[in-house]
Amino acid sequence: MSDHTIKAYDEELQILDHKIAEMGAIAEKLLSDAMESLFNFDADLAYATISGDLRLDILERDIEEQAIATIARRQPLAADLRELIATIRIPSDLERVGDLAKNIAKRVIKIKPQLGIPRCIIGLRSMHELAATLLKDALDAYAQRDAERARGVWMRDADLDALQHSIFRDLLAFMMENPHNIAFCTHLLFCSKNIERIGDHATNIAEMVVYLVTGESLPIERPKGRSSTSVSPTTVM
Amino acid sequence: MSDHTIKAYDEELQILDHKIAEMGAIAEKLLSDAMESLFNFDADLAYATISGDLRLDILERDIEEQAIATIARRQPLAADLRELIATIRIPSDLERVGDLAKNIAKRVIKIKPQLGIPRCIIGLRSMHELAATLLKDALDAYAQRDAERARGVWMRDADLDALQHSIFRDLLAFMMENPHNIAFCTHLLFCSKNIERIGDHATNIAEMVVYLVTGESLPIERPKGRSSTSVSPTTVM
Repeated sequence: MSDHTIKAYDEELQILDHKIAEMGAIAEKLLSDAMESLFNFDADLAYATISGDLRLDILERDIEEQAIATIARRQPLAADLRELIATIRIPSDLERVGDLAKNIAKRVIKIKPQLGIPRCIIGLRSMHELAATLLKDALDAYAQRDAERARGVWMRDADLDALQHSIFRDLLAFMMENPHNIAFCTHLLFCSKNIERIGDHATNIAEMVVYLVTGESLPIERPKGRSSTSVSPTTVM
Repeated sequence: MSDHTIKAYDEELQILDHKIAEMGAIAEKLLSDAMESLFNFDADLAYATISGDLRLDILERDIEEQAIATIARRQPLAADLRELIATIRIPSDLERVGDLAKNIAKRVIKIKPQLGIPRCIIGLRSMHELAATLLKDALDAYAQRDAERARGVWMRDADLDALQHSIFRDLLAFMMENPHNIAFCTHLLFCSKNIERIGDHATNIAEMVVYLVTGESLPIERPKGRSSTSVSPTTVM
């Protein structure tokens, strides 16, 4: 490619990177807003989270269009092509993070606060903090093409699965104590599952970063993770 | 491209289509085996389902490698490029269908049959039948590049969401009747959620088929579906 072409090509890649960074920032905001709306039973914030998700869907389509146009125009070879395929795949994960945050917000609008909520909610706060960290680290690892940071996300996802397992047991006990808690706690069960899935999407992004930087595929089986063929509780809660 | 090149290119696309068809057949089998293992509390079939999922993960990576190699070698323009991008995206959905079937199978190994199961299970049978139909139709629509059939999948996904909502209410009532049902029913709640997600992946495939065939993007908001910004119960159960 001529210098001019290379410069134009680099600019196209930069635009894609910026749009993915914008998606990442929106996804992080939707997650934190959804959780705040849950912790404070703030229906207004929940509605704002639900409507805020649309921007992610639009950006995802926009990025895919541009990535395909860039591939068609620049005809990159395998290494550059992987970068562009990643710019199509990572937005899919971020769009799902937005869906999962939106799903939590929709539950907030439906659930009614019950007695003893604080005890239930503490575990969700820990899950949220870890999931938000994994998502941030995965996005930073992508922005900086930092394979080590990405590997860290991949390793820590199992901690999120373990947290969800313990919350699952707490919520079951809480339901058994008092049937009036059942409807409320089942919503919280699904919220915790949604946060665990957000960790999986952060891990997908991390796996792509490791592959982009090192060319090495991480094992299909994640450490003690959701996709393990073991049947340890963390894999099915 | 020369006739020879065109022929070789068509052969590469055919190989990809065959591998996607193989993934589709495996995903359908994993779903039906997972549900049979649940309906019959058949732990052996559940273990077989769990281990059978690995083949999908391997095929997904294999197809992505080949699709990227084909793009790099053939340098297709936009229309052909979309076909090849679809051969990367559809396997991701099929791999997730396998994960969700595996997750159901893992629950089968953990849950203990309770009294009154038949009443709980009937709704899951209906969900399974509809999800299996949506998945089959989406795969057939892709194999035949049949946009009308794909649109039908997109429309019917909302029925699966509605079914899941009614099962959610039944299971809640069942838990409230007798706290001994709570652990068992929460597993069934997650099974029903997994089946609903399988419908979403079938719908993703259907949306790609419509786009490939007509160039037209379906609306971001699915009819009454999970991704709707409404907060009707079917969107949050």
